[in-house]
Amino acid sequence: MKFIEGGVTAAKGFLATGIHCGIRKNRSKRDLALIYSTTLCTASAVYTTNLVKGAPLLVTKEHLKDGHAQAVICNSGNANTCNWNGAQIAEETCEILAKELNIPSNNIVVASTGVIGQLMDIEPFKVGIPPLVKALNENGSDEAAEGIMTTDTIKKEVAVEFEIGGKTCKMGGIAKGSGMIHPNMATMLVFITSDVAISSEMLDKALKNDIKNTFNMVSVDGDTSTNDMVTVLANGQAGNRVIDKDDEDFKTFMKALNTLTISLCRKIAGDGEGATKLLECVVTCASSEEIAKVVAKSVITSSLTKAAMFGADANWGRVLCAIGYSGANVDVNKIDVSFKSVKGTIEVCKNGAGIDFSEEIAKEILLEKEIDILVNLNSGYEKATAWGCDLTYDYVRINGDYRT
Amino acid sequence: MKFIEGGVTAAKGFLATGIHCGIRKNRSKRDLALIYSTTLCTASAVYTTNLVKGAPLLVTKEHLKDGHAQAVICNSGNANTCNWNGAQIAEETCEILAKELNIPSNNIVVASTGVIGQLMDIEPFKVGIPPLVKALNENGSDEAAEGIMTTDTIKKEVAVEFEIGGKTCKMGGIAKGSGMIHPNMATMLVFITSDVAISSEMLDKALKNDIKNTFNMVSVDGDTSTNDMVTVLANGQAGNRVIDKDDEDFKTFMKALNTLTISLCRKIAGDGEGATKLLECVVTCASSEEIAKVVAKSVITSSLTKAAMFGADANWGRVLCAIGYSGANVDVNKIDVSFKSVKGTIEVCKNGAGIDFSEEIAKEILLEKEIDILVNLNSGYEKATAWGCDLTYDYVRINGDYRT
Repeated sequence: MKFIEGGVTAAKGFLATGIHCGIRKNRSKRDLALIYSTTLCTASAVYTTNLVKGAPLLVTKEHLKDGHAQAVICNSGNANTCNWNGAQIAEETCEILAKELNIPSNNIVVASTGVIGQLMDIEPFKVGIPPLVKALNENGSDEAAEGIMTTDTIKKEVAVEFEIGGKTCKMGGIAKGSGMIHPNMATMLVFITSDVAISSEMLDKALKNDIKNTFNMVSVDGDTSTNDMVTVLANGQAGNRVIDKDDEDFKTFMKALNTLTISLCRKIAGDGEGATKLLECVVTCASSEEIAKVVAKSVITSSLTKAAMFGADANWGRVLCAIGYSGANVDVNKIDVSFKSVKGTIEVCKNGAGIDFSEEIAKEILLEKEIDILVNLNSGYEKATAWGCDLTYDYVRINGDYRT
Repeated sequence: MKFIEGGVTAAKGFLATGIHCGIRKNRSKRDLALIYSTTLCTASAVYTTNLVKGAPLLVTKEHLKDGHAQAVICNSGNANTCNWNGAQIAEETCEILAKELNIPSNNIVVASTGVIGQLMDIEPFKVGIPPLVKALNENGSDEAAEGIMTTDTIKKEVAVEFEIGGKTCKMGGIAKGSGMIHPNMATMLVFITSDVAISSEMLDKALKNDIKNTFNMVSVDGDTSTNDMVTVLANGQAGNRVIDKDDEDFKTFMKALNTLTISLCRKIAGDGEGATKLLECVVTCASSEEIAKVVAKSVITSSLTKAAMFGADANWGRVLCAIGYSGANVDVNKIDVSFKSVKGTIEVCKNGAGIDFSEEIAKEILLEKEIDILVNLNSGYEKATAWGCDLTYDYVRINGDYRT
């Protein structure tokens, strides 16, 4: 398994691009992205659990009922959510694109991200889709990644190469996600492509298993978006024997998917709105995986812990506090806490109580860009990891005035 | 029922004070508060549900087992939580005070607030308690209210006067609470005194009923403190017939308690760390009270909604989003949302979708200091109110560097 360049166009037979079509006023920002496979793919997706769902999600869900897709279209600048005609606009977008690509409309995945509750005009799609299709190219992952960005400050792309049954396979993904990030059973917008041959049932199984320990363990601000979605398309062009059961090949596929998604999780959390630091909370020695997860997510979600990390303040009491109210049944008198970064590791709490530690060394460790919060529950053998970011002035600035 | 001056010393027979005893370095800030009744009181308290509990809470719980108390001592500057000898220090504090007041040690309520996990020295208590007791006076509520403040910017005091069985009764309270505020079954530090005669059973019932709709509906930052506590002491000096059953007198007492606690809730939320605005979310026409509460609390807790309110941005999509992920079973297509302040009311969402509204008028309304977020679920007859505040640069500043 190795990381390679190319994002969603790394895998054989995938093309992509992104253009400005007029949904955003700023003409220098691409606002419409397209991913296309030269052949039909098996496809799977997971969606937000928010009761308020973006109209494109409902349309996509319908389109993916047969487990197949060939293209993904996604705009930024308008979430097409809480609009009375949202589903109609999303369907119409697919129809325009279907005609242009000469594929059935129900083989298209449609997604939107941006402001909620603003009417979406079909015009930019009508005007934009023909040149969008013309612009499709084998190195277009970058353009597509930019097309789906909102408050993101960096493009989120990753690709890996691996072998299945002697065949070289590739898998790549792009993601957007910066604010309103607290996925639950699904997540922010992530599009993954692969040239692996895999049945839609096994693809579905792979994705649903994977997100439990990856995207569902990310939180920027505790707000579960209305438009979260992760989609995987696999076109089989790598030429491997089709993966249709839980065998070694499936395990290899799962490993590749997991490598890819963890990398995207870290990118998304590290680029959280206003964030200056990536936080990773690693909970070990829990009596159950569920407890480890609940504890890790509670720590990473605590506003007080996040603000302390912004200030490089080793205020471990806030970590204990977040564990205590997490709802997980833990023995607080057994908890050890350490902070870790490239500068080293420092233990700050032992058996649920403070210990002497050097504030200078702690500061030096916490001033780094990537901080691990290590929680040892000393109660069993299970573990979990969650990803988040610090809470900063810029988070407030960005969200105090998002719409204008 | 009318509001009066005097806080916790408004009711007959209650004295209070606050001094600087040396727990805090800043000598101009009182850090130790005392409330004392000249006669024994019935007493009740509710505590945080955080598994990590401050040592003083455990000691107080033990002391209140018999339903009686006569004094409350509380320090700020150190939470006496996650310390190996915390319970011993809290017990010793009560013993020193008991000797000085000449009352049994188990008639004392003890509380602490401040940094978690820093060893607590008994010395300041030894030195401070004798002068503290000497300073007790009939107008000392102010001094006590200051003594329990941490990041609070205003003293939180309130008192009401009412009649029971022809007797004039009074009830007063002080509170602290600014950050780490997201009570669950109990709350921040609140001390309430009354001269009503009421059995400890009925006092208990009154308090436990009241907090469900008051303190448990407040959130500043989603972090449930380790030291939350609400205590009520009633000394019976008003001379009314003892309230020992659920009769009209009890209803009057409940009404007084509710008037007092709602006033304190608003003070606590409005003085949330870094807050510039008090937010009140009123959910109406819910199919159950539980749903109304879950929705109200989810809206008031959403970081994105809080940041939008800071920016006076009528971004109602974030309100819908917070309702959608609240876990409450609601029909999102029936939801109406309005924003309200002294400047007027503006409807921004109808049947779960956006409607045309004047951004200028919305801005004018949202620039006020007290904002009501009105959510109509159009599904029944139940309602609930929750209190919170906006998320500001100052919240981040305060919590980025709380310990130093």
